[in-house]
Amino acid sequence: MEKLRKHIEEIIPVTDEEFESIKPFFTIRKVLKNQYLISQGDEAKYEYIIVSGIFRVFYLDDDGKEHIVQFATENWWMSDYISYFNQKPANMYVVCMEAGEVLCLTLEGREKLSIALHKMEHFFRVKLTKGYIALQQRIISLLSNKPEQRYKEFANLYPNLMQKIPKKYIAEYLGVSRETLSRLYSGNK
Amino acid sequence: MEKLRKHIEEIIPVTDEEFESIKPFFTIRKVLKNQYLISQGDEAKYEYIIVSGIFRVFYLDDDGKEHIVQFATENWWMSDYISYFNQKPANMYVVCMEAGEVLCLTLEGREKLSIALHKMEHFFRVKLTKGYIALQQRIISLLSNKPEQRYKEFANLYPNLMQKIPKKYIAEYLGVSRETLSRLYSGNK
Repeated sequence: MEKLRKHIEEIIPVTDEEFESIKPFFTIRKVLKNQYLISQGDEAKYEYIIVSGIFRVFYLDDDGKEHIVQFATENWWMSDYISYFNQKPANMYVVCMEAGEVLCLTLEGREKLSIALHKMEHFFRVKLTKGYIALQQRIISLLSNKPEQRYKEFANLYPNLMQKIPKKYIAEYLGVSRETLSRLYSGNK
Repeated sequence: MEKLRKHIEEIIPVTDEEFESIKPFFTIRKVLKNQYLISQGDEAKYEYIIVSGIFRVFYLDDDGKEHIVQFATENWWMSDYISYFNQKPANMYVVCMEAGEVLCLTLEGREKLSIALHKMEHFFRVKLTKGYIALQQRIISLLSNKPEQRYKEFANLYPNLMQKIPKKYIAEYLGVSRETLSRLYSGNK
């Protein structure tokens, strides 16, 4: 829970008393490699703040092809937000690629915290703003057909993950072949 | 300004006194057809809430090819948010397709309003949440290679714009040819 406090205080300082009232809304959960936190068809009950580990959020199309929406690691937030915010069945999967721990927060908890503490509403708004920017960047990257640019944006977004994520998934995220990825790697060393 | 109040009160009611303190942060601006509100290279100083009119947000790649990020109409918000939030030069263009009016808000105004009024911080958070969901949906739509699905999502997102936006731009948004678009239209009547 100390990590949670640090995470919040990167945005806004809270008093001990405030933090005591915030803590009960979060539950901590260990996640094993290959374990799924969200599966298509289930309702996404939680959003997850990653304490440690690496995760992959993906979408399976009607032909069973996987499309990676995002990777997520320490301090990132993730969920199927369409499902989470609308309380509808999920369209996406969230799976663990490297074992770790996450903090879980329900939508009800999120709303209650926001109403109770202006500081928490601020915290959520700022985090959401950062998330919004990341998504707009992902859209531009998807719209552009330049593998070099996608690669550059990926390296920029996930500087710590380049060596940790199997190349197979990076190629998939970028929408390029393994050969093209190797060329991009060697060109950017 | 009455529209602004209505727009805010769709999320949270405000008193007359509160609204008087909110109003000065917004300026109203008329926009003509083909007029640009944001151009690549400029800093996006404002976010815009659309009172009336239709707008197109697009990105121009290095080859000069246009990629449509979103359309926007009444009550939608738009900006180059990467530029707006980070105070960096814009990568995108915002252009008017049908003349109208917008309410302009600076980032400084946005932050001041959020700090001064918990209600406004709430309002921005809720709007941002809706925007976040729309972007996540756009990403899934882009990742999926099914024109039918993209078309369905487009129709769902912009039910009022189907007849108002030139087909050329709809085809571009969906990443399909004019012929494919005609087929999708006739198949969904």
